[in-house]
Amino acid sequence: MSAIEQPQPAALQFPALEPPRRYLFGPGPSMVHPRVYGALAKPIVGHLDPYFIQVMTDVQQLLKTAFGTNDGATLVISGTGSAGMEAAVANFVEPGAKIAVFANGYFSDRLTEMAKRQGANVVRFEKAWGETYTEDEAREFIRREKPKVVAYVHAETSTGALQAGQAICAAAHDAGALVIADCVTSLGGVPVAFDQTGIDVAYSCTQKGLSCPPGLSPMEMSPRAMDFLRARTSPSRSWYLDLKLIHDYSTVSHRYHHTAPISMFYALREALLVIAEEGIENRWERHRRCHRSFVKGVEALGLRMHVPEDHRIAILNTVCVPEGIDEAKVRKRLLDESDIEIAGGFGPLAGKVFRIGMMGPLATEDNVQFFLKEFKKALNAEGYSN
Amino acid sequence: MSAIEQPQPAALQFPALEPPRRYLFGPGPSMVHPRVYGALAKPIVGHLDPYFIQVMTDVQQLLKTAFGTNDGATLVISGTGSAGMEAAVANFVEPGAKIAVFANGYFSDRLTEMAKRQGANVVRFEKAWGETYTEDEAREFIRREKPKVVAYVHAETSTGALQAGQAICAAAHDAGALVIADCVTSLGGVPVAFDQTGIDVAYSCTQKGLSCPPGLSPMEMSPRAMDFLRARTSPSRSWYLDLKLIHDYSTVSHRYHHTAPISMFYALREALLVIAEEGIENRWERHRRCHRSFVKGVEALGLRMHVPEDHRIAILNTVCVPEGIDEAKVRKRLLDESDIEIAGGFGPLAGKVFRIGMMGPLATEDNVQFFLKEFKKALNAEGYSN
Repeated sequence: MSAIEQPQPAALQFPALEPPRRYLFGPGPSMVHPRVYGALAKPIVGHLDPYFIQVMTDVQQLLKTAFGTNDGATLVISGTGSAGMEAAVANFVEPGAKIAVFANGYFSDRLTEMAKRQGANVVRFEKAWGETYTEDEAREFIRREKPKVVAYVHAETSTGALQAGQAICAAAHDAGALVIADCVTSLGGVPVAFDQTGIDVAYSCTQKGLSCPPGLSPMEMSPRAMDFLRARTSPSRSWYLDLKLIHDYSTVSHRYHHTAPISMFYALREALLVIAEEGIENRWERHRRCHRSFVKGVEALGLRMHVPEDHRIAILNTVCVPEGIDEAKVRKRLLDESDIEIAGGFGPLAGKVFRIGMMGPLATEDNVQFFLKEFKKALNAEGYSN
Repeated sequence: MSAIEQPQPAALQFPALEPPRRYLFGPGPSMVHPRVYGALAKPIVGHLDPYFIQVMTDVQQLLKTAFGTNDGATLVISGTGSAGMEAAVANFVEPGAKIAVFANGYFSDRLTEMAKRQGANVVRFEKAWGETYTEDEAREFIRREKPKVVAYVHAETSTGALQAGQAICAAAHDAGALVIADCVTSLGGVPVAFDQTGIDVAYSCTQKGLSCPPGLSPMEMSPRAMDFLRARTSPSRSWYLDLKLIHDYSTVSHRYHHTAPISMFYALREALLVIAEEGIENRWERHRRCHRSFVKGVEALGLRMHVPEDHRIAILNTVCVPEGIDEAKVRKRLLDESDIEIAGGFGPLAGKVFRIGMMGPLATEDNVQFFLKEFKKALNAEGYSN
């Protein structure tokens, strides 16, 4: 049989899986600790196996430290951070209920969209992307609107702004409202302080401050939130994200709900152990140190930060694109020539900011200096001089 | 400082991750190919990285062979098989629309529950768990009910029964209805024949016939289904599972929707390559061969299969529990003494069947004989003799 007659097996058209080694200096996914890759490669067991139940339980316990809670109910959604957002909205915002959204970036827009799809009455407090809210502003808004639920983004990935939660939670509780906080870009990287802040429902992801691949969404719920959940008479519109059923599978009864992503739970457990061994406070401090060094470095290059000093997220920096520079070209050059990933802005910030993460294993002084050197090189090659 | 005053770091309370090596002879998760574990341990890249876009594209192409389609639109949901089910329901069953469910097992009950939560009008054709439907029965039901959507479970994990799809699809199309088929326990293990059967929307999982860990849900949609999706004017109640947005991220524009679980996509690509290298038809035939050998073996032990011969799922066997035997004790003994996981029945089949999978790497004659030997031992120890 000649070569031409021999059909080529489909598999041969595909090269072996050999991903390039990127430095993930973007807003996430961030660099993964080598031990976490080791955990991913461990043999799976069943989703009701006593060993896996223990892994789930360990993960819940370890997450409490990262969230900063003693009283909360912890669980993990089998989907990415956006699945956590949808779980929060679908379970705590009943159709027809009023939700007040602090709207100062892309992820509050996503919250708005999800709440509308759940049939909620959404009211928004609009601010420019990158701005934050004072306690007085929050209180006035909540007093006027009398919502059942208040939602804000703790660390807004699209803008680099950190919203102090106390300003919002106290006013919401005075008005009898539950508070949902998007902690996708804060958990593991900067303090969430769930109990102290007074958050009722927080959701996050694995691929940013926790230095684990994407695929799961850790969630934390206050006793008040659990009371609401137990008292709710209509079922959530989502079965997959029904927190009553997931809580039941994840905790006491371990009654089957769905088949949890076993390998991802292994990875998350290992990522949380790596964090616990360093100590979460030490990790936050390391991130703060690198953040200061980074800001000093970019300002020395003549660049400006987008967010005022007191409202920045330590692990995610938004740097203004200098006049006349094409940010997409800078990013492409960094990726092609230095294997460095960073992100650009979008929405009102499209073309205006670089989004640069310094998370987990990358948050060291050496890595900050390495990044700044490559960043300067790419900027200069695209016509920037200072 | 004495040992007693030294607080123990939280991490030290947790032993290193060392999962037991189980033989996963249950209904899933099933045994994972070693190459797939290798893929999980590869370094991640960003979710918009050109390398990841290629991985997603490869996965879609490789899935088409497993689904048996040329024309369909293929994508992968970032959640488990139940997320795929909810995506199918939330996108193709509009609030108020009538859906006709062929209800002969647990997963058609789950479909019913999800459809109700989406505000659908659900009508059910009830049969005992383990039975299937003839073409005449299906046609009569659909003609009478005139639904917009018809849903059935191709391979019912709770009963071991395989439903021929042609019997349902032709009648549904004659009535102008779309057909949703649950292929969670068929894809990769037995033929789905998406195009030939006339399915419009199929969803599956990674952890059964594809021999990959759980965490993703492959989906296939016919051109008719895509037309419906594009013409739909109200958005789906779920943003996370909005198939228009996911299709957009997964295919042409690659516009950001959510951060895909990178490592799980690596794993799925590798699992599909392993299948492509064996050849999907060869794989199906290997499963059929082992199934015949398994049935011969259990019948030789004096045991009966729950489902009639022509309606069995080759990769998932339901074996009747013999009179007087406590099936939970048999399962516990298998797990504790032989590291073998199998499952019991639930709902109307609780205590009445064992659910035993022979999937992927476990589907060899040696493994069938190994399993039968251990199974006999456990049964005998629990008082069974034949």
